[in-house]
Amino acid sequence: MTHTNQDVKDTGLRGVKVASTRISHVDGKEGKLIYRGYLVDDLARNATFEEVCYLMLYEKLPGGKALEDFSGELKRRRRIDPAMITTLKARPPGSFPMDILQGGVSFLANHHEHPDLLTRENELDIGMALISQMPTLMAAFDRIRNGKDPVDPDPALSHAANFLYMLTGEVPDTEVERIFDICLVLHAEHSFNASTFTARQIASTRAHMFASISGAVGSLSGELHGGANARVMEMLMKIGSVDAVDAYVRKQLESSGKIMGMGHSVYKTKDPRARILEPMVKKMGERTGDHKWYEIATALEQKALAAFEEKGKTGIHANVDFYSGALYYPMKIPVDLFTPVFALSRISGWIAHVIEEQFAEAAPKAMLYRPSADYVGEYCGPEECEFVPVDKR
Amino acid sequence: MTHTNQDVKDTGLRGVKVASTRISHVDGKEGKLIYRGYLVDDLARNATFEEVCYLMLYEKLPGGKALEDFSGELKRRRRIDPAMITTLKARPPGSFPMDILQGGVSFLANHHEHPDLLTRENELDIGMALISQMPTLMAAFDRIRNGKDPVDPDPALSHAANFLYMLTGEVPDTEVERIFDICLVLHAEHSFNASTFTARQIASTRAHMFASISGAVGSLSGELHGGANARVMEMLMKIGSVDAVDAYVRKQLESSGKIMGMGHSVYKTKDPRARILEPMVKKMGERTGDHKWYEIATALEQKALAAFEEKGKTGIHANVDFYSGALYYPMKIPVDLFTPVFALSRISGWIAHVIEEQFAEAAPKAMLYRPSADYVGEYCGPEECEFVPVDKR
Repeated sequence: MTHTNQDVKDTGLRGVKVASTRISHVDGKEGKLIYRGYLVDDLARNATFEEVCYLMLYEKLPGGKALEDFSGELKRRRRIDPAMITTLKARPPGSFPMDILQGGVSFLANHHEHPDLLTRENELDIGMALISQMPTLMAAFDRIRNGKDPVDPDPALSHAANFLYMLTGEVPDTEVERIFDICLVLHAEHSFNASTFTARQIASTRAHMFASISGAVGSLSGELHGGANARVMEMLMKIGSVDAVDAYVRKQLESSGKIMGMGHSVYKTKDPRARILEPMVKKMGERTGDHKWYEIATALEQKALAAFEEKGKTGIHANVDFYSGALYYPMKIPVDLFTPVFALSRISGWIAHVIEEQFAEAAPKAMLYRPSADYVGEYCGPEECEFVPVDKR
Repeated sequence: MTHTNQDVKDTGLRGVKVASTRISHVDGKEGKLIYRGYLVDDLARNATFEEVCYLMLYEKLPGGKALEDFSGELKRRRRIDPAMITTLKARPPGSFPMDILQGGVSFLANHHEHPDLLTRENELDIGMALISQMPTLMAAFDRIRNGKDPVDPDPALSHAANFLYMLTGEVPDTEVERIFDICLVLHAEHSFNASTFTARQIASTRAHMFASISGAVGSLSGELHGGANARVMEMLMKIGSVDAVDAYVRKQLESSGKIMGMGHSVYKTKDPRARILEPMVKKMGERTGDHKWYEIATALEQKALAAFEEKGKTGIHANVDFYSGALYYPMKIPVDLFTPVFALSRISGWIAHVIEEQFAEAAPKAMLYRPSADYVGEYCGPEECEFVPVDKR
């Protein structure tokens, strides 16, 4: 056991290396994101979300047969237990989707044969179940809260198309399917961000996969993390037209000094995912004939960047959350499902991290994350406070 | 933003100070545990769990009137929504209690008026709901899985007595009530252990109290953390009699080199909580006439300590998990509820930490925990791997 006694207080561990990883690399200076050796740009252009899931779980891209088997297995496991539907029906219609997802992941453990068997094989099996069933859970919840029957998963459809189908009851055309698929690819993994660190930290106690992923969902729900994508959309709707962008930027910089979806703790240049998403928002506008979101978003990005620079703040660019909502919205995904949709993709990275935490050869055995803190509280009397019974207080 | 680039890789952050706290202090060398200035020994001797909850949430011990109001409010909030009972009834009877608790805490958010209102006042309100309702949830689950009706909470009873009553249907006598109450006091708080760090980490994204606590429950479920108390009891049952202790110690030291419930990442002397629990186990044996658990446990502790020292490993003493089970078992708490019972106490500390993370003046604003990692994965070709389409792989 190493007692470093290093004082990294109140830095949020920024820049502090806590582990080795083979899963992904974020080069914040160059604006590069690499999943297991592959540039995210190449994967977004060429690979499906199923291929990326395979890459995450099995550490390499699949051959044709392996991909077919893997996709088939994901399809076979999409259906959730009827008891989960009963459970969802008991939830109040106003429940927050991220609370449903966080609780739902824990309850999916109740339907797995060996939730707590800590072998790599079993954790991979649970991972497959979660990739397949989390979309079914969220789509069913959304249908139920709107008084509709859940739509059964369709094994003829890809992962991306099937989710949109279960949500809306309509099979998307191939262009929309591919746009959504690319969104899933882009959100799959991002190294030791807050939710992934949460997943690893829970896994380090030798808690099981469901417990770790449920915790990660909780972490993602915060507005400083995944919750941002919904807030960006709310902001774009509030701005409403490209003419109102100038005034909005001025007002924000005077009050909070922040624009939702701009700035990133690692990227000091434009987030590579935002670079890929931006032209897709344009394309989506051309499809729907509604160019508003593209116009507002791009104007907002340019004007905010300029206004930040004027104030001497450089490197505050659009991040992944800035453009994703403007794609989900025309797909008829409700705004409060944007963050759950983030989770439906990031689940693939989280699984890889839990497995790396628990089974990587390099990972130290039986070493849970357990930092220290500076006690700055009371010491009464010579050292500790003297206890006074309640009737004498 | 500080880029320290400090390499604390693979140390599990042991000895690394990540924050300041006013909540508790663990002096591992002296074997002292302090809650907001008070020695846990004094609190165990003199205070109820309700007083300790007040101390955690309001940073001081309550006066008579304040304690009465606080206890009254906890009593008023014990009942859970009927929809939660419906939800529990939909869970398979073989579900793991910690999965039910983790999912259940997330779903309790669905029944709060403002789960996501991040003010100190609202977070305290949610905290009161969780302290009150988590016991009701777990007792109801245990009744339901055994085909019995849940027992309504009784506002005439203390927090400790009410839980045992809801679980067994019988009001405990005052001696058992006080023993259980002391157990709750002793488990209430322990600085930046894994589950508390998880709670703080989730809270740092500005996720809400329910999300943070649910994640902490997941972290506690791991066998390297709260899961240990159930495993100690299973070990004592497996050993079965004091005559078998010697052989068990020998066998364990030869195989895994570990004895469940012995050793602690911070205490290098006997855990002060174990010091308090041990004589209570003796007392419980005198009450029930069954001295077996006390005899096995104390013999095991002595022999294991001696055997570890013979191998040159000093400082491996009994920790809090070593003796708690031998108290819960004769109270008719099922072994798989031991870890949930830990959570029913630790909830008080977790709430204090979430509030400290989100509202303490010293806490840096908008600074989530986001460490770095060393990428040691693939770089193919000149730098990144070249993407080869699936039909050419």
